[in-house]
Amino acid sequence: MPELRKDPIMGRWVIIATERTKRPTDFKSEPLEPSGSFCPFCEGNEDKTPPEILAYRAAATLPNKPGWRLRVVPNKFPALQIEGNLDKRGAGVYDRMNGIGAHEVIIETPEHHLTITELSLGQIQDVLWAYRDRLADLKRDIRFNYGMVFKNVGKVAGASLEHTHSQIIVLPIAPRTVSDEIRGGKLFYDYRGRCIFCDIVQQELDSGDRLVLDGDHFLAYEPFAARFPFETWVLPKRHMSHFEDIDRGTCEELAYCLKTTLLKIEKSLNMPAYNYIIHTTPFDLGHIDHYHWHIEIIPRLTKVAGFEWGTGFYINPVPPESAAEFLRNMQVG
Amino acid sequence: MPELRKDPIMGRWVIIATERTKRPTDFKSEPLEPSGSFCPFCEGNEDKTPPEILAYRAAATLPNKPGWRLRVVPNKFPALQIEGNLDKRGAGVYDRMNGIGAHEVIIETPEHHLTITELSLGQIQDVLWAYRDRLADLKRDIRFNYGMVFKNVGKVAGASLEHTHSQIIVLPIAPRTVSDEIRGGKLFYDYRGRCIFCDIVQQELDSGDRLVLDGDHFLAYEPFAARFPFETWVLPKRHMSHFEDIDRGTCEELAYCLKTTLLKIEKSLNMPAYNYIIHTTPFDLGHIDHYHWHIEIIPRLTKVAGFEWGTGFYINPVPPESAAEFLRNMQVG
Repeated sequence: MPELRKDPIMGRWVIIATERTKRPTDFKSEPLEPSGSFCPFCEGNEDKTPPEILAYRAAATLPNKPGWRLRVVPNKFPALQIEGNLDKRGAGVYDRMNGIGAHEVIIETPEHHLTITELSLGQIQDVLWAYRDRLADLKRDIRFNYGMVFKNVGKVAGASLEHTHSQIIVLPIAPRTVSDEIRGGKLFYDYRGRCIFCDIVQQELDSGDRLVLDGDHFLAYEPFAARFPFETWVLPKRHMSHFEDIDRGTCEELAYCLKTTLLKIEKSLNMPAYNYIIHTTPFDLGHIDHYHWHIEIIPRLTKVAGFEWGTGFYINPVPPESAAEFLRNMQVG
Repeated sequence: MPELRKDPIMGRWVIIATERTKRPTDFKSEPLEPSGSFCPFCEGNEDKTPPEILAYRAAATLPNKPGWRLRVVPNKFPALQIEGNLDKRGAGVYDRMNGIGAHEVIIETPEHHLTITELSLGQIQDVLWAYRDRLADLKRDIRFNYGMVFKNVGKVAGASLEHTHSQIIVLPIAPRTVSDEIRGGKLFYDYRGRCIFCDIVQQELDSGDRLVLDGDHFLAYEPFAARFPFETWVLPKRHMSHFEDIDRGTCEELAYCLKTTLLKIEKSLNMPAYNYIIHTTPFDLGHIDHYHWHIEIIPRLTKVAGFEWGTGFYINPVPPESAAEFLRNMQVG
């Protein structure tokens, strides 16, 4: 019999279709298209992107010239515009504001043909540290309230350029999923007096059923009410509301956990397209006890059908316990 | 400059990317695959589906035999199981229940090669009336609380069989999108004392900017904070919380409005894949003043990228006013 499961944070229900369980090999992945065409993210093409905002580069090299190991540049086709004042207005029953925000690209390596999992731990640490640097800088701009850090891997997942990169979209308001999570966390906190994420960490470590990786400071696991097959979350064990508060030591271990988890997913599912998204507390909130930053990794394996699209009610054909067992046992590196 | 718009019902923000406006012809549609293979929904193959639950058929014809013009059958591969008791249980911080529910298929015509827009108004009226019949019947089962009626057209939209059909999934709990809409409607009602949907009807009729069709009892329009290009809603003008309360007269006009709207979308976008979903009030609520049933039509034109997937924050490259103007002026039938 299938099972209905409630996401304890959002209150969203999911159908876990245990009887139609699929093996990882049942999913087809569309291979990455090797582009072969000109790439503005490659070393030597620095003048083909807008001027860099941040770069980690060798001493005595010049901005917007070769010599970098990571570069952050504005997106050439930004979803939002950086300049202008926030202008919030009503129009009858409706509310609007002008589209002020930032849209930046983190170019993770000068080398075109590497994927994020082929980068060294030091390089992945750089990537995570660049997220931190940019969030810490952007949150000083009082027009902004949220920085969405995400990465699309593969065309199916929305990647338009092959050269490995992440993106940050900075918004005047928090996205709905995050504010819903925060609201759910607050409800739990008001009732139980604890952070729901901290409780989840405890329960997942105790049961082990959905655990993928158990590190010193992080765990990777399949959420109880996973919406998608092989949906995987990486969570700090210690309570921490803002991603940008990580320190160098934490960042080092996170690089290891993220790389290992992604490798397990890639190897299990034959290089699927996937997204990861960092969920963190909005800029205008100080440290809060009821929300806990985390990374959500979502392989793009199933077509989301009509009713899931329009209702927020998902059918997941792979029980998270089966996915976790598979990933846990997958040897990598 | 792009614009941020807030959905007045859900409170969800959307980026309307006015500067990258696309023409309808910029979207490619994947054509429907003609299957050619055996179809269990065709007349004469009645024994290849589970026994019918409901059929509109000629007098003196037998159940599960030819002679029908519309049939409702259980889904052969149901997402949920009809038999059993609801068993709600906690497991630490988590909640689950067994997957009790109904999953039915409405076969809209015995003829294989017709699309819904090729059906006569009378046939579409039958389809809508079958939704009503099934919802009215299923709501008498106290284990159930919500009936999701939806239709997937085209492979990209999740249709697995070509023969035109709709589906109903009946659930013990309301899906999140609907309960969020109801919560939003309640907030507005508590503050303003009116139904937000009724206010929207008034404002859309007054401005006309986003109007697609203005009927006697229904309007079709592009929502102010449309998530998707050419997203279109069909709304009754008079307040009405439950879809299953429609009468024959209303159903007749709804058939006309739905068919005309779908024809306009099909003609404008070159037969795109699309979904429509009926949003209605859960079974356990009587008539309520703060929620208004409606149909959401979502053409599947853009790939939803990583950050939209993980955050519920959408970028819509077509301003709803442009889409509405295009659809409004498109002559059909």
